[in-house]
Amino acid sequence: MTNSSEVPAPTLQVIPLGGMGEIGKNIFAYRYGDEIMIVDGGLAFPKAHQMGIDLIIPRIDYLIENQSLIKGWILTHGHEDHIGALPYLFPRLPRVPVYGAGLTLGLVREKLSEFGIKDGDVDLREIHMGDKVQIGQHFGVEFIRMTHSIPDNAGYILTTPAGRVVHTGDFKLDEHPSDGQLSDLERIEQAGKDGVLLLISDSTNAERPGRTLSEQEIAENLEQVIANSRGRVFLTTFASNVHRIQNVINIAKRQGRRVVMEGRSMVKYAQVAQDLGYMEFPEPLLTSEEVGELQDQQILFVCTGSQGQPMAVLGRLAFGTHAKIALRRGDTVVLSSNPIPGNEDAVNLIVNRLYEIGVDVIYPPSYRIHASGHASQEELATVLNLARPKFFLPWHGEPRHQINHAKLAQTLPRPPKRTLIAKNGDIVTLGPDEFRVSGTVPAGAVYVDGLGVGDVGDDVILDRVNLSQEGMVILTAALHPTPHVEVVTRGFSHPNRELDNQIRRVALEAVENGMREKRRLEDVRDDMYGAVRRFVRKATGRNPVLIPMIVD
Amino acid sequence: MTNSSEVPAPTLQVIPLGGMGEIGKNIFAYRYGDEIMIVDGGLAFPKAHQMGIDLIIPRIDYLIENQSLIKGWILTHGHEDHIGALPYLFPRLPRVPVYGAGLTLGLVREKLSEFGIKDGDVDLREIHMGDKVQIGQHFGVEFIRMTHSIPDNAGYILTTPAGRVVHTGDFKLDEHPSDGQLSDLERIEQAGKDGVLLLISDSTNAERPGRTLSEQEIAENLEQVIANSRGRVFLTTFASNVHRIQNVINIAKRQGRRVVMEGRSMVKYAQVAQDLGYMEFPEPLLTSEEVGELQDQQILFVCTGSQGQPMAVLGRLAFGTHAKIALRRGDTVVLSSNPIPGNEDAVNLIVNRLYEIGVDVIYPPSYRIHASGHASQEELATVLNLARPKFFLPWHGEPRHQINHAKLAQTLPRPPKRTLIAKNGDIVTLGPDEFRVSGTVPAGAVYVDGLGVGDVGDDVILDRVNLSQEGMVILTAALHPTPHVEVVTRGFSHPNRELDNQIRRVALEAVENGMREKRRLEDVRDDMYGAVRRFVRKATGRNPVLIPMIVD
Repeated sequence: MTNSSEVPAPTLQVIPLGGMGEIGKNIFAYRYGDEIMIVDGGLAFPKAHQMGIDLIIPRIDYLIENQSLIKGWILTHGHEDHIGALPYLFPRLPRVPVYGAGLTLGLVREKLSEFGIKDGDVDLREIHMGDKVQIGQHFGVEFIRMTHSIPDNAGYILTTPAGRVVHTGDFKLDEHPSDGQLSDLERIEQAGKDGVLLLISDSTNAERPGRTLSEQEIAENLEQVIANSRGRVFLTTFASNVHRIQNVINIAKRQGRRVVMEGRSMVKYAQVAQDLGYMEFPEPLLTSEEVGELQDQQILFVCTGSQGQPMAVLGRLAFGTHAKIALRRGDTVVLSSNPIPGNEDAVNLIVNRLYEIGVDVIYPPSYRIHASGHASQEELATVLNLARPKFFLPWHGEPRHQINHAKLAQTLPRPPKRTLIAKNGDIVTLGPDEFRVSGTVPAGAVYVDGLGVGDVGDDVILDRVNLSQEGMVILTAALHPTPHVEVVTRGFSHPNRELDNQIRRVALEAVENGMREKRRLEDVRDDMYGAVRRFVRKATGRNPVLIPMIVD
Repeated sequence: MTNSSEVPAPTLQVIPLGGMGEIGKNIFAYRYGDEIMIVDGGLAFPKAHQMGIDLIIPRIDYLIENQSLIKGWILTHGHEDHIGALPYLFPRLPRVPVYGAGLTLGLVREKLSEFGIKDGDVDLREIHMGDKVQIGQHFGVEFIRMTHSIPDNAGYILTTPAGRVVHTGDFKLDEHPSDGQLSDLERIEQAGKDGVLLLISDSTNAERPGRTLSEQEIAENLEQVIANSRGRVFLTTFASNVHRIQNVINIAKRQGRRVVMEGRSMVKYAQVAQDLGYMEFPEPLLTSEEVGELQDQQILFVCTGSQGQPMAVLGRLAFGTHAKIALRRGDTVVLSSNPIPGNEDAVNLIVNRLYEIGVDVIYPPSYRIHASGHASQEELATVLNLARPKFFLPWHGEPRHQINHAKLAQTLPRPPKRTLIAKNGDIVTLGPDEFRVSGTVPAGAVYVDGLGVGDVGDDVILDRVNLSQEGMVILTAALHPTPHVEVVTRGFSHPNRELDNQIRRVALEAVENGMREKRRLEDVRDDMYGAVRRFVRKATGRNPVLIPMIVD
């Protein structure tokens, strides 16, 4: 670990604390001299083996240690993996100006208020695309519009004494964006002409050839799917995909369907988007009770649950546990989404349940009704060609995405002079002729579980994994009046009195031997543990978590 | 449940006990009058939520109850989901003739010997494609070759007094099979002309348009990939894909590479296949020690681990834990496979590790080096068109696959008169003008966990899931000499003495109150449980599994 005070003045440091080598919990710091600027503050969702964890936020020891140096914070857009950790991070860091576009800040405000953080505790400052802001003495930030799956998505051009950085943020190059506002490639091209020291670009889809579908094509295909539906339509997509949902609302209007919106997050995003002018309802939304009077072909539900969450609206509809609505033959369910990696099984379960109910189920790839928000290879190449960076940092991706992005860059007419595959915690040091990892700072995952932040670590997770595999056996030996042992199991096997008795006998024998030999209680406990462990393994082929206790 | 003795004589029953509405544990019974014939006996692998389970076998109560009626058993091919449960099923059922092709029986023998089941205990009878066998009085079975991802794969035409059944078995229509032996479509066409009462066909890929790639195209692409590799090549695929592995061995020979085979299942399949003449080594295999003397570009490893199993060869190579071999820059790792649904995360983890090591990683879809063994829509249509069945039973698929298969059939020039979407346990009754579910028999999953078969059920799994989510807290209250409580936790949080003390105080207060009021011990225990549960939920936002015990 490099001590921060040793940094020579004229180099710029890029220090990713999340989002490098992974997709999720994006946050990084720029440092120049004794000034730090932060970008984003996102969360990640746990993988299957991170059992019981609610969400994951980045470790920010570096920022806390150097908090007096933090001069400002910029936010690229309102997705959870870019702003979701802010309610956990803001209270631990000083109040500095936080810049972001209208919808982004609207979503941040909503989130902070859920956590009881007051408006006055944070210094949110709205920017518009094209705005330039100065952060500290050394960071000039120009926000540039980049198309993505949420409105008001920004990249930026950062001007520092060490040189110019272009950071795409999350993006795709949609040539037919729903709001008519294209990515600001002119600014990237101009920066390329002026000289770009470093490009930091979105690697999510670096393995996908060609171009990502335009939102317009998705809308056209959805229009057709909905037109072909004869009964009620239930459509699910990502709640944050404001343009998609607006398009669906417009389609409903054209086709004489009234819209019902169901699901907490869907309603919340729509509320914020409508309040700030990013969404418009040509007709008032109805409630599920109100549409009871309409004919089936006049009804369209927009609902949560595209990722197979059993408690979201689509999940409850599929399992027949929704309090007010029941699916029936003749309904059409449209999944305008793909499962995020890790959610495949959950989505598959729900799709199968929908088929069993007998509704029509419409989803990709048979229907082209979802597009990623991230650029494919040709779009990535366009940005690389325009920015002509000297150095290149593939970001927002797992190693496979970062490395394929790096390889793609090498195939272009003007490849970067050097590309680094960075990890979270790397100090990437940049000068006119310098581009290297010069040290590391602490970085990693902090687990949020219930009200606990950081009190569950990988050791606790490992216990959970062990408990999940073969359950547990608790042995309680009481020594008085005469030694006896109780056996309690969970997740081990069906109630099996004979096996319990055998375990009890094995344990008791160990205890009695130990007492006869006047061994120490810890040793007796260990003997009991060892004897039962061997017996259980031999009798059942299993290794449950064994918890031996002796009550004296 | 229909009592089996009530069945009227002239109908045929098809009774799936596994493989209907799911992909896995294929087995079904035909019944005509008082004769039963069984097809296959496969296992399924657990889903993520079936924690700790090793594998799943079908419930066969129906066969056990009616065991005196069983006249014979036929096996379509040697994949685990068709023969993997046999060592569990054979010992519980009478010894009857079991018919299968050479490789299929070879793999069954291998499996039985692993379980210590003697050759004499089973009556395995080898058939060749085209053979006809008579089972009981009523079942005439003609085995027909169907191409698939394992050699010696059979469908069959079943002749019964009620009519003719064509069962495709697992299949694709490979027009360029590696062994030159095509699917026997002539026999299906002839059956279609003679009249097919029922078609039972493989639904796995019923959602995929077009045709499944031929094994020949895979071999050509692999040849090119290996030719482009300058260092050592490590190739993984399914161990049972004998043709693929033979092709790789041939490619190695042509390109001057010697082959090392690593991994228990890979070696086992190769051994059986070679012994029976299904695989040929133009040069002897080498060991990983022996290739030490060769140059890197003269070496090709064929290894296990294509599904991301951490303990298989590729897993150990990726995590650097293989005892003898270490990957290094310049090596090429080829995944000639796709992740089976549910294995995506595990494979992704390994792919990322390989990138981090710096080896070249080659996998689909960027490279077309894997093909499914199952027919896509055009091939499914060909079989439907040739067989012209009166009735249709889409099989070997989840509801989404079965229903899309049914829909596909309806689009054809001569659609079946009726299609049923059956479930495991359905009694599908067939007559000249009858095709319906006339009742059900018990069916479902039996979990195998360690040495236990069936002693872990969904209740035990639910305990495991609960333990995995937020761990557990054990409260042991001893009443003498004065009441005191011990708290033990696992998977709950980092060691937290203060929280433990608080829990202890809450528990002790409940116990002391209960004793003062002279309540019954069960009630005191419940009080302690309730008080701690409320406290923990409020203090941590979690609901661990709480286990209260009172030692008097």
